[in-house]
Amino acid sequence: MAISLARGSIHLEKPVYISSYSSTAGKKEGSGPMGECFDRIETDSHFGQKTWEQAESRMQQETVYRAMEKISLTADDIDIILAGDLINQCTSSTYSIRPFGIPFLGLFGACSTMAESLITGALCLISGAAKRAVCVTSSHFSTAERQFRFPLSYGGQRPPTAQWTCTASGAAVLDMQTKNAPAIEGACIGKITDLGVCDANNMGAAMAPAAADTLTRWFEATGTSPMNYDAVVTGDLGLFGGQLFLELMMKQGYEVHPVYHDCGVMMFDMDRQDVHAGGSGCGCGGSLLCGHFLPLVQRGVIRRMLFIATGALMSPMLVQQGESIPSVAHLVEIVSGEVDENA
Amino acid sequence: MAISLARGSIHLEKPVYISSYSSTAGKKEGSGPMGECFDRIETDSHFGQKTWEQAESRMQQETVYRAMEKISLTADDIDIILAGDLINQCTSSTYSIRPFGIPFLGLFGACSTMAESLITGALCLISGAAKRAVCVTSSHFSTAERQFRFPLSYGGQRPPTAQWTCTASGAAVLDMQTKNAPAIEGACIGKITDLGVCDANNMGAAMAPAAADTLTRWFEATGTSPMNYDAVVTGDLGLFGGQLFLELMMKQGYEVHPVYHDCGVMMFDMDRQDVHAGGSGCGCGGSLLCGHFLPLVQRGVIRRMLFIATGALMSPMLVQQGESIPSVAHLVEIVSGEVDENA
Repeated sequence: MAISLARGSIHLEKPVYISSYSSTAGKKEGSGPMGECFDRIETDSHFGQKTWEQAESRMQQETVYRAMEKISLTADDIDIILAGDLINQCTSSTYSIRPFGIPFLGLFGACSTMAESLITGALCLISGAAKRAVCVTSSHFSTAERQFRFPLSYGGQRPPTAQWTCTASGAAVLDMQTKNAPAIEGACIGKITDLGVCDANNMGAAMAPAAADTLTRWFEATGTSPMNYDAVVTGDLGLFGGQLFLELMMKQGYEVHPVYHDCGVMMFDMDRQDVHAGGSGCGCGGSLLCGHFLPLVQRGVIRRMLFIATGALMSPMLVQQGESIPSVAHLVEIVSGEVDENA
Repeated sequence: MAISLARGSIHLEKPVYISSYSSTAGKKEGSGPMGECFDRIETDSHFGQKTWEQAESRMQQETVYRAMEKISLTADDIDIILAGDLINQCTSSTYSIRPFGIPFLGLFGACSTMAESLITGALCLISGAAKRAVCVTSSHFSTAERQFRFPLSYGGQRPPTAQWTCTASGAAVLDMQTKNAPAIEGACIGKITDLGVCDANNMGAAMAPAAADTLTRWFEATGTSPMNYDAVVTGDLGLFGGQLFLELMMKQGYEVHPVYHDCGVMMFDMDRQDVHAGGSGCGCGGSLLCGHFLPLVQRGVIRRMLFIATGALMSPMLVQQGESIPSVAHLVEIVSGEVDENA
């Protein structure tokens, strides 16, 4: 059973295991400082397809296949798949999942999707509705730029606060049997937060308050503080958003800085790769969770971490209508199997 | 606990109650044959707002308020809200939910969203993660036409298979305590189905195979047949899609016709209201479930029903790229409190 510690903050009495995970990255992401952690780096940004959208679908699909393959599963072994992405109508996910024939729940959490799918998948397993779930998300630079900002060929200039949407995907297989795998022990479901940021080129600032709200609620619900965790990882706040997040947490009395990492900042070499404030996108946090952090948890190097994926629930149309950008941040507590055994 | 009867088919050992529900409809929907069932009919299609998107958000928000008010709840009493809609980035839902401050899971299932939110909400409650959930969806004719087909002012001609996206919303409050309310006793999570329909003006045909797949899987998993239900209700297959659905079920050996209803066909007077193949949209099934069917279940007139909401997971961009329309259908089994008491 799950126990509701406070509204939205959940402790899992019996953990849900992340029994397999896989990550894919594009060429630019693969040649950054994290390049070695990905299962696959694809140098063709079209992934062998004709359009960017088909490319993203293909990337996501291959990531799911690899996550299943690693533990010798096929689509027939999966009871439910939970997926979402940034593209209108979550189209990268629906076309990606079409051939699998797995019961499907579509999610929309923008860049918070990896955490949302892990939480929703874990609760499905806890409820007894499913024995094995796949959680997946993706983003692609070229699909996202065209949709949220400018077509690539327009050559629009990017302000210093802009982030670079990562071409990347992460997929995880959940079950309740596998031991000695990273385990989900808790979660905090985000509330929509909106402090009035209207600039679609400053998403880190829009999302930072959501991350701070969720993490503060989690610390209060669990009676923990940053020192109880080996790592507190946000998905894609970037340089400016991350700084704002740390300041907001400081105001709440929590010094997160010593254990803090942001996947958006980690993904690229800021001096060399011209990405301004860092990486972003569902695939940014998703691929580094599955490529970098989960292996560290598996090996016990990280024994307890919080993965906080933040999403700017931005509609280009409403931003054009003068609206501000609502954001959400979902938190997942992941512990190493070892710690769990001794608990 | 939930019991997995077969992949995606779930029986709830302890039912989840739909303790309150509310519906809102626009002027055209309100002057159709179902007009009397809605809690509120709004004659201003802008709902007092400046843009269509803001109008849809406002409609959805008011529907949630009314569902909570009916049982004297406020947003603070709700542990989690599950919402989605048709508009890019589920923007009607995120802006609608922003002021509530309720932990939020965003869903994307196109017109299947009402069923998807009821299923996901019920599983959250069953897992123990939440005590009370709100499930909501909406659609608006003017937001959907602009986004999926043509701007209204273009005056494009509509083929006979076209459906009319309903301006409507439905919201439900779930808990596990209230007795004598409609109860969710089972569910079947849909698989993505795609038989190659590429015509965005014939969504019923794209969605019918998904509905037939889900219902056949449900009958097989539960050993039931149409005669076990007082009503089998689809969300918005419309005249042509509904006919195709009945034929597909017939091929599987199930005569659904005697208990069959489609919200899209029920919503409008086909002779008088010029809607061609009927109503569609998340709000079509959502509002008639909450406005018409749940009250009948509450009064015991319907003792056991299946609500199957179908979604065309259509991306205008991929349809322009020549892709076919993947669809999904989620099924919810709803029984009257009375039946449950005697079970």
